[in-house]
Amino acid sequence: MSNVLDLTCELIRRRSVTPDDAGCQALIADRLRAAGFGIEQLPFGDVRNLWATHGSGGAPVLMLLGHTDVVPAGPREDWQTDPFEPVVRDGVLYGRGAADMKGSVAAMVCALEAFVAAYPDHDGTVALLLTSDEEGEAIHGVRSVAECFRATAQRVDYCLVGEPSSSRTVGDTVKVGRRGSLSGALTVHGVQGHVAYPDKADNPIHRFAPALLELSQRQWDAGSADFPPTRFQVSNIAAGTGANNVIPGALEVQFNLRFSTAWTSAALRAEIESVLQRHGLRFDLRWHVSGEPFLTAPGALRDAVRDELLDRLGQAPEESTVGGTSDGRFIAPLGAEVVELGPVNASIHKVDECVRVDALDVLADCYAGIARRLLVTAEAVAPGSEPSSPT
Amino acid sequence: MSNVLDLTCELIRRRSVTPDDAGCQALIADRLRAAGFGIEQLPFGDVRNLWATHGSGGAPVLMLLGHTDVVPAGPREDWQTDPFEPVVRDGVLYGRGAADMKGSVAAMVCALEAFVAAYPDHDGTVALLLTSDEEGEAIHGVRSVAECFRATAQRVDYCLVGEPSSSRTVGDTVKVGRRGSLSGALTVHGVQGHVAYPDKADNPIHRFAPALLELSQRQWDAGSADFPPTRFQVSNIAAGTGANNVIPGALEVQFNLRFSTAWTSAALRAEIESVLQRHGLRFDLRWHVSGEPFLTAPGALRDAVRDELLDRLGQAPEESTVGGTSDGRFIAPLGAEVVELGPVNASIHKVDECVRVDALDVLADCYAGIARRLLVTAEAVAPGSEPSSPT
Repeated sequence: MSNVLDLTCELIRRRSVTPDDAGCQALIADRLRAAGFGIEQLPFGDVRNLWATHGSGGAPVLMLLGHTDVVPAGPREDWQTDPFEPVVRDGVLYGRGAADMKGSVAAMVCALEAFVAAYPDHDGTVALLLTSDEEGEAIHGVRSVAECFRATAQRVDYCLVGEPSSSRTVGDTVKVGRRGSLSGALTVHGVQGHVAYPDKADNPIHRFAPALLELSQRQWDAGSADFPPTRFQVSNIAAGTGANNVIPGALEVQFNLRFSTAWTSAALRAEIESVLQRHGLRFDLRWHVSGEPFLTAPGALRDAVRDELLDRLGQAPEESTVGGTSDGRFIAPLGAEVVELGPVNASIHKVDECVRVDALDVLADCYAGIARRLLVTAEAVAPGSEPSSPT
Repeated sequence: MSNVLDLTCELIRRRSVTPDDAGCQALIADRLRAAGFGIEQLPFGDVRNLWATHGSGGAPVLMLLGHTDVVPAGPREDWQTDPFEPVVRDGVLYGRGAADMKGSVAAMVCALEAFVAAYPDHDGTVALLLTSDEEGEAIHGVRSVAECFRATAQRVDYCLVGEPSSSRTVGDTVKVGRRGSLSGALTVHGVQGHVAYPDKADNPIHRFAPALLELSQRQWDAGSADFPPTRFQVSNIAAGTGANNVIPGALEVQFNLRFSTAWTSAALRAEIESVLQRHGLRFDLRWHVSGEPFLTAPGALRDAVRDELLDRLGQAPEESTVGGTSDGRFIAPLGAEVVELGPVNASIHKVDECVRVDALDVLADCYAGIARRLLVTAEAVAPGSEPSSPT
């Protein structure tokens, strides 16, 4: 069995349901310390974060980013085998976190071990940041670490995120940006009353109808080569006492926008509040910004990732910005180029989550190769000195 | 204490929470039998209905209509005194059903006793119909009795309903019709999905928005001298999983229309279904018709009621059609003129329900007087032979 597979299995056996780390980071810290990394714990609240670095401490800083927590497995009987007891069947590893993202984390650790063994005097700094709060509230994880980095002027030039970015085969798709995500919890106020006496009441559902129509039919932007169009979606709506003869006194609406770099969350908030005001609504509105959009422009990191995948897999990846948010959203505002490269995402958050065993080795090779492209100057690479595969 | 007050108290002490009659009708049947009425039980399901008649059995048939069931009292401690132990304070009788409508029922019984005593050979037929299912499902009460009457060709010319029609003082308002009430339970189908991938989902809230706007802003009719405009009201709306990143798969909407005689429920149903279809919705829709609208045109009953109130109270009543439904909706389609005359409705269905004691006597006098106007030909009324007040 490969080194990456072994470590992935060790991590899956640790029941690190978010935000519990269950010893994953201690295991990894021990290995990277032995490989010569400096190890720092960055706990916030009850969340463990691990910051491991190797090199000068200076630029360029390449950070590999991952998380050790997983989503709950749900009922054991829904799985073919125990979600926390890794099993390989027909070249596929099954277990909670296999794809999201203990496989990537194991590949990163093995890649880093191999890379620093081959290039102990590499340029700049290579680092690993792990959190145990990516699947949960995501408050005390990378969000807090990024605030800390900003305060201490810790630079990050390149951030390679291990989130499962691939569609059908490993490396066929990488994410070079993410849409922003903005949520609103809206209460539209009316006046409760009997349906038989509507003039003594004020129906908040009827009041909201014109604003709902405008917000749901609006074209927010046309999209771009990098982003699909910004979209508004009502996710939850509720009003009423249950009785059919009562006009409700208030309407509760939750909505979400996934938005491109054509918008900021502040501009969207102002625009939506202005629509609600223009329609004469009495309302309360609470906002939650999950992340601003970011886009990594073509540059050193995108080049390194694309060239590495092209050389290794014979095909350049699709460079996409679709899908949900990731912890990359907290790192991009530090000025880092951010790219996500990980396994196929078809099984994530589902029962029988799985990853192809050979994909784990491909990822480890790619992570190490990308580090070499970014942190090893051409003249330092002696012929034949490419790091051996970490398998 | 007056005869009417005594009987009202006897009825309040019987805890006839809908659909339980708790012996109220048996008490009344005994009294009316003693006064010469024919008594018939018309039970349907677990609901008691009492049909008491006096006279030829032929036309004109004046029916007094009431119910012996009451709505639940709620927590005892919310009331100043026991809701089922009648108490008179400062000329006001307190107890569940005092106003809705054991007071009216007692006034009707006393009025009938006095009337047949004074005019044993009155024209046509005077009758009392009582049910114990007006406040509940209203399936096995007057709705079923009316079907029975239709089957047996039992005619009803005039129907005087004891529902609390008055606003500030007894007799200031009578109801000469009622709007119809039509309810719909609508499910709008969409396709569930992740908010990050809206093209793979179909948001039923957004789909419904144009139809909601049209239905809620439409002027269904302009109203008339007799009816306020027909109105559409959404009473309940619900969609969503609770999560803010999921587009829901279906939207549930309950709505109600209170409608004038410019519409029938069938016409409204067809119109609303056509609106939903025109907006391209995939939907299921369940209908419930609580009652068709009716209007009693000026005629013998409205004249008798108005003249009686003018003579007795010095002021003609307002003749209104606003407010909720009543069992009169089942009798009007039999071809009867229907008018509602009862006490002030300010306290009905509330804690500390109450009625003025003097209003009970006024009602009894009015019911008897209206019967005399309709069933006693002028030449049969000897001077000074007006029935004595039943107090």
